[in-house]
Amino acid sequence: MAAGVSVATASKALNDTGRMAPETRERVKRAAIELGFRPNAMARGLLSKRSFTIGLLTNDTYGRFTLPLMAGISEALVDHGVSVFLCTIEDDPALAKIHVDAMLDKQVDGIIASGKRIDRRLPVDLGHLAVPVVYAFTDGPDDSVRFVSDDAQGSREAVQWMVGLGRQSIVHVTGPTTFASVKVRADAYSEIIGAGAEILHGKWSEAWGHEAVAQLWGGDRPRPDGIFCGNDQIARGVVDALRERGVGVPGDVSVVGFDNWEIVAAATRPPLTSVDMNLKTLGKEAGLTVLAMAEGKSVEPGIRKLPCQLVVRQTCGGVEAG
Amino acid sequence: MAAGVSVATASKALNDTGRMAPETRERVKRAAIELGFRPNAMARGLLSKRSFTIGLLTNDTYGRFTLPLMAGISEALVDHGVSVFLCTIEDDPALAKIHVDAMLDKQVDGIIASGKRIDRRLPVDLGHLAVPVVYAFTDGPDDSVRFVSDDAQGSREAVQWMVGLGRQSIVHVTGPTTFASVKVRADAYSEIIGAGAEILHGKWSEAWGHEAVAQLWGGDRPRPDGIFCGNDQIARGVVDALRERGVGVPGDVSVVGFDNWEIVAAATRPPLTSVDMNLKTLGKEAGLTVLAMAEGKSVEPGIRKLPCQLVVRQTCGGVEAG
Repeated sequence: MAAGVSVATASKALNDTGRMAPETRERVKRAAIELGFRPNAMARGLLSKRSFTIGLLTNDTYGRFTLPLMAGISEALVDHGVSVFLCTIEDDPALAKIHVDAMLDKQVDGIIASGKRIDRRLPVDLGHLAVPVVYAFTDGPDDSVRFVSDDAQGSREAVQWMVGLGRQSIVHVTGPTTFASVKVRADAYSEIIGAGAEILHGKWSEAWGHEAVAQLWGGDRPRPDGIFCGNDQIARGVVDALRERGVGVPGDVSVVGFDNWEIVAAATRPPLTSVDMNLKTLGKEAGLTVLAMAEGKSVEPGIRKLPCQLVVRQTCGGVEAG
Repeated sequence: MAAGVSVATASKALNDTGRMAPETRERVKRAAIELGFRPNAMARGLLSKRSFTIGLLTNDTYGRFTLPLMAGISEALVDHGVSVFLCTIEDDPALAKIHVDAMLDKQVDGIIASGKRIDRRLPVDLGHLAVPVVYAFTDGPDDSVRFVSDDAQGSREAVQWMVGLGRQSIVHVTGPTTFASVKVRADAYSEIIGAGAEILHGKWSEAWGHEAVAQLWGGDRPRPDGIFCGNDQIARGVVDALRERGVGVPGDVSVVGFDNWEIVAAATRPPLTSVDMNLKTLGKEAGLTVLAMAEGKSVEPGIRKLPCQLVVRQTCGGVEAG
């Protein structure tokens, strides 16, 4: 069977545009199928089922932030018949480009760029692709659509929670000053505490939590009765160190972590109260947004901050103040 | 421009087979390109750059096992210009099928199926796809190519290491009996210990590690001087519980974990000696194998067990025996 039509006609036939005899359109479509072609437009128009795909690009090879995000994207999009394909890239721009090209070659309908910190960009320019791009938990160009968690709001909730419980001397033990998220969280803490604010910077590790407690309880200084930690690993170190010094958590000191990383927060003794960045919700929003853009809807560029949520476990004491 | 040839001729032209005038072949290829078709065979034969893609399918939504595997696949294949796209599926067969169809629709060159345990299959039949399928860290059909870690060998190394250090009363604290990996590891342990073997089953958690120590040290029974744990979380609980009882690790008791999960093993005090399943190497082998199959090479079906490696940190004491 020969299609025997011009390229323009074939193109119109396959895209269900233009004017032609129904038999002609049908003939072109059948010829294309028999050739084994499965271009996107065809699959959509012809096969009566959509096969949309969103590419998720990340350099978070550990998956700590990207997998909850991906779960949210998948959950939001599977009802639309959309699959999410994750591709991890290292920091080599040349290798990163191979993966982006592969995504474009496979005709994904949109790309969500993600990462392991909000103040760094992926090592590849996604600025002028033929498909829409949305940024989630990674930095992007000024004219892009970006989703991040509202760490300032989350930090305020954590500190206010301890203040509400009657804590009067709250310190902040957090990560390296080079992280934008460290500054955002510390600023929110300082804003509430005011003059007495005290911020200790170190690594994102349990060991730093131990060391910070050694500093705070080691000398001849007044002891804090609340510790707001920059992440859950630091908080776990803090809680362990306090227990080993015979300091009661939450009896003597309230502790709050950040990330609500289940594997750490739930295993802490007692289980850790922590700020959840709601990465799954972030993923849902990013997914629905890139899908809307792929369907031709226009979306205002800019940063969308989604609220964090304080997950109360046992390291802060009861709900009543005082 | 009209192609104006039969489907059979067009197919031969695009696949560089059959006999025809070079101009005819060229004309068909150009027409196909202008139509916007990018089928696989074309992309490979015509566009002078390959755009191979391997789909990685998993129900390990936490990524604990799949991400190291993926890192290995990527590392092995990126030099071949191959990208790896991960798609996570839940346990709903209908949803799983949507994702598999999407992968096929995007014309991946092969699929690696993975999971969160070696004795369960994914909720979707990958038995008769048009592309090769390899199974890694998940169960598959009898006639499939499957890659798993050699947990028996890894367990033997762990127990023999403690025996070599002079430990004389080694118990095994592990996970639920319903896991095949629990049985494999326990059998290897029993094989070396013989008559005195003692196996305690519980959850895969730190809390169970604490509880097991309470059982072992609580009553009027002889204390073990070595504990081989079924995973790192149990081992971390064991090490913490022993420290809190004033029992020295490694002075009085040697402890070995399983998984070598950096986030747990490195943060344990002292850092945990653990069995590494070499999932990255498993990924490399699975990746190279599915690529070979995609290139038409024939691969013998069956299970390939790849060796584990004991990673020595500080919970077992020095290298000398006794």
